[in-house]
Amino acid sequence: MNVLCLHCSDKPGIVAAVATTLANHECNIEESSQFNDPLSGQFFMRVMFTPLNKESLENFTTAFKDTAAKTFQMHWDIHDLAKPVKTALLVSKTDHCLHDILYRQRTGHLNIDITAVISNHETNRALVEQAGLPFHHLPVDADHPKEQQEQKISAIIDKTDAELIVLARYMQILSNDMAQKYTGRVINIHHSFLPGFKGANPYRQAYERGVKIIGATAHFASEDLDEGPIIEQEIVHIDHRHTRQIMQVMGRDTESRTLAKAIDLYAKRRIFLHDARTVIL
Amino acid sequence: MNVLCLHCSDKPGIVAAVATTLANHECNIEESSQFNDPLSGQFFMRVMFTPLNKESLENFTTAFKDTAAKTFQMHWDIHDLAKPVKTALLVSKTDHCLHDILYRQRTGHLNIDITAVISNHETNRALVEQAGLPFHHLPVDADHPKEQQEQKISAIIDKTDAELIVLARYMQILSNDMAQKYTGRVINIHHSFLPGFKGANPYRQAYERGVKIIGATAHFASEDLDEGPIIEQEIVHIDHRHTRQIMQVMGRDTESRTLAKAIDLYAKRRIFLHDARTVIL
Amino acid sequence: MNVLCLHCSDKPGIVAAVATTLANHECNIEESSQFNDPLSGQFFMRVMFTPLNKESLENFTTAFKDTAAKTFQMHWDIHDLAKPVKTALLVSKTDHCLHDILYRQRTGHLNIDITAVISNHETNRALVEQAGLPFHHLPVDADHPKEQQEQKISAIIDKTDAELIVLARYMQILSNDMAQKYTGRVINIHHSFLPGFKGANPYRQAYERGVKIIGATAHFASEDLDEGPIIEQEIVHIDHRHTRQIMQVMGRDTESRTLAKAIDLYAKRRIFLHDARTVIL
Amino acid sequence: MNVLCLHCSDKPGIVAAVATTLANHECNIEESSQFNDPLSGQFFMRVMFTPLNKESLENFTTAFKDTAAKTFQMHWDIHDLAKPVKTALLVSKTDHCLHDILYRQRTGHLNIDITAVISNHETNRALVEQAGLPFHHLPVDADHPKEQQEQKISAIIDKTDAELIVLARYMQILSNDMAQKYTGRVINIHHSFLPGFKGANPYRQAYERGVKIIGATAHFASEDLDEGPIIEQEIVHIDHRHTRQIMQVMGRDTESRTLAKAIDLYAKRRIFLHDARTVIL
Repeated sequence: MNVLCLHCSDKPGIVAAVATTLANHECNIEESSQFNDPLSGQFFMRVMFTPLNKESLENFTTAFKDTAAKTFQMHWDIHDLAKPVKTALLVSKTDHCLHDILYRQRTGHLNIDITAVISNHETNRALVEQAGLPFHHLPVDADHPKEQQEQKISAIIDKTDAELIVLARYMQILSNDMAQKYTGRVINIHHSFLPGFKGANPYRQAYERGVKIIGATAHFASEDLDEGPIIEQEIVHIDHRHTRQIMQVMGRDTESRTLAKAIDLYAKRRIFLHDARTVIL
Repeated sequence: MNVLCLHCSDKPGIVAAVATTLANHECNIEESSQFNDPLSGQFFMRVMFTPLNKESLENFTTAFKDTAAKTFQMHWDIHDLAKPVKTALLVSKTDHCLHDILYRQRTGHLNIDITAVISNHETNRALVEQAGLPFHHLPVDADHPKEQQEQKISAIIDKTDAELIVLARYMQILSNDMAQKYTGRVINIHHSFLPGFKGANPYRQAYERGVKIIGATAHFASEDLDEGPIIEQEIVHIDHRHTRQIMQVMGRDTESRTLAKAIDLYAKRRIFLHDARTVIL
Repeated sequence: MNVLCLHCSDKPGIVAAVATTLANHECNIEESSQFNDPLSGQFFMRVMFTPLNKESLENFTTAFKDTAAKTFQMHWDIHDLAKPVKTALLVSKTDHCLHDILYRQRTGHLNIDITAVISNHETNRALVEQAGLPFHHLPVDADHPKEQQEQKISAIIDKTDAELIVLARYMQILSNDMAQKYTGRVINIHHSFLPGFKGANPYRQAYERGVKIIGATAHFASEDLDEGPIIEQEIVHIDHRHTRQIMQVMGRDTESRTLAKAIDLYAKRRIFLHDARTVIL
Repeated sequence: MNVLCLHCSDKPGIVAAVATTLANHECNIEESSQFNDPLSGQFFMRVMFTPLNKESLENFTTAFKDTAAKTFQMHWDIHDLAKPVKTALLVSKTDHCLHDILYRQRTGHLNIDITAVISNHETNRALVEQAGLPFHHLPVDADHPKEQQEQKISAIIDKTDAELIVLARYMQILSNDMAQKYTGRVINIHHSFLPGFKGANPYRQAYERGVKIIGATAHFASEDLDEGPIIEQEIVHIDHRHTRQIMQVMGRDTESRTLAKAIDLYAKRRIFLHDARTVIL
């Protein structure tokens, strides 16, 4: 199955133009959603369709490019949903998100192809290599300044043709350059229910504040840390008996699940990014 | 805003035909969803659109009826979303769902127009009349056999032109005739997480079984009680400290919310019924 | 049934002293919880018990006061759980929390006795008086300075012997004096998942930030607005289709439920306040 | 830290007797819960306490055995919470629960000591042996009748001194003998929100019935399959787009989490089993 994702300024006739072009080239719509955003004035559309054969797909693509896409000045993409998304994982010492992603990838729950696992620590080498995946150790310290290491990371991403970059509890802040270069392609998991408890030690903050719910937030990385467009949020109820340590354990589950959900949404091409917000179709 | 709801056997070109007809008659799509159900082979579509003016709507409707609707042998409807759904409420002694619906209707949270409240008990007369609504007492007993009372209920529904019938904790089982006459128009709330704990006293069953979660199910009434197509389900966690009485109190909240959600989905024309299942777009 | 609530610095022998005194005076423990808080070093205990008769209760109370309570320098209280908590409600124009509380009180879901409803607007007079409750209109404006009105509010609270004060969407900030006078007795509902989105217009903030979950927080009012000890938090999932207006409707449900839950916890004497945090037993 | 778990017929003086014996032997209560069950007439108590030293613990134990435990004819146990619970895992081909348990055990989230993994298939040998754990393949087929294999399983359990037996998606029904022998020690995960959808293929049943929520149930195995005392239940919302296959993926997450939660409750000695129900303190 294929999926067409597009967005453009709202005008009459968008759906008609898209659907007609599909129908004219033997492409059958399986599931589809559209949303006209009153805040941004953008029209978002996601269409899952089955082309009759390879030629139908090619013909549709060419026709679409020259007509509807041009007329409405669309941002658009067509993806083959069967094809796993090439993905680079960045991690530090913590392994719960990494472990969870590797398991889901291996069992077919996450349709991604992991091209590289990059870490500023050696800790997770065994786990990664046991899974038959390449592990790159790129420490960040006095001898290995961040800027230089980011260039190496960037080189690996580009060389392995990774489209998606997942910060699976990567405890380094991306530079502005890096964040800009990969806008809309870097998913981070923040161990807090943003916008509450930004910054470090959110579980300690939550414990001391006595909140009754903690959460995790998967978002696109942006230059302004912890302020990137939110993709998914999950929560778990806690009470006074939960120490910071127990919160961390509970939080890990929530983080893993929330991040996996966000990666899955990305792999299914359901996330539309516009300015500071996401639309999930 | 208007909404077009349709379903038909899946064939290529449905969305194109619909969207083109809309575009040709100055109707702008605001939000739309389609679903091709692999189980039933049916294609479901819901389109919210804004016509340029009253004439555009009329022209679209006429054109649609004669072309796309005919070609694809659609089941279809066009509704004005601003227009409240005429609704008859059937209740017994319990008042939590009734009370909740009256409040939501009054404050504009539920876009319905309550044409009649019918009850087999006098209990809720004051509540209903205080809200300025007509209350009909139709007891079911030896002197007032069920069949006869159902005819009166049916007469009120038809006379007040009610489209939707809500069993807001109405403790009478509808006859097969009644269920058939109003297929897809009667929403019932069952105080259990169906299919578990069918029948009477679900909270007692739940208590004695020691379940850790109770729930409520809003569904279309069908001839086979507690087996109608499910619209919405909600749950709440419980533990050993919750007696049957406390469960009932917690359950009432869940029932009210679940029923209100189902009515809201109906009023927004988001429920599609096909055979024994619903599709919510 | 009665309930004994106490807290004191942790020392060996507290539970033994309490339980022995109860047993010595024919008081049977029905349910009980204890918690030794590592953060504050405080020991919290809540015991539900049934005295054999009125004399047993009196004898236990006297004995307890002179022995265990003194020895361990406890903060303690004994309440009759059958006795409703005298409660004053403060509201503004919005009525969803008020409406919900009145319904729950009337149907026995909230064991409170509403001694007064005080508002800075006339809006809710009819609703309150229809329920047979006294309504006090105390506007805050140029002619009626806040300080003076707070004195009147305070007078009503004290005169009607209200123990609990519920800010059921009361859009006025309490003065420091007022907050201090009633420490641990004023429950506020904040229409946000604190600590995110403090201050005004949280739903607008949530909408613009594109969060995927919104929530409500019931907390004790303190001098530092929106920073009081948290009692209960609830959330609801949202998505891009939810406008600020829809969020408000969904938020109202969450606010009503969260506030009702907090009042219920208070009425069941399950909330223990110590410094900036609550322990719920 | 130690934990004392007990239950007995309710009589006055139980808590006093327990707490006094603890206090008399230098054992400090950290957290404690009691519950007097109106349904069964049983009194349940769980006390976490810190003895001053090893002798205090021994002295308390001896004293307790001879006094309170005898007087009230208690069922009781004292456990060292630091000591992992010896656990045997039974699995078939599916690996999601197994994988999850191994990870949680390894990272210290589940305080268990896995003494054996037993399976009727070879499928999971690598996963288990990679984790450094003994894997036993005991196929059930014409040449290896179930009765005989159960005896071998039983022998492994007894030989490795496993206290807890976890059926982590073990697709064999235990014989009555086996279920009886290990009453209250075998935790099973059922991939349905019991009591709905008992038996095989619950996801297909759920799909065809069009339910809006699916769930998982962790329960003690009993002779009557799918009817054992419930320990924990979790749910996840679904909709019409979820095919049986997607439900299975979502269900796996829910199953893993629910089973892990139940094992954690067991390891923390928080589950009290009495007749057909559990009390979780």
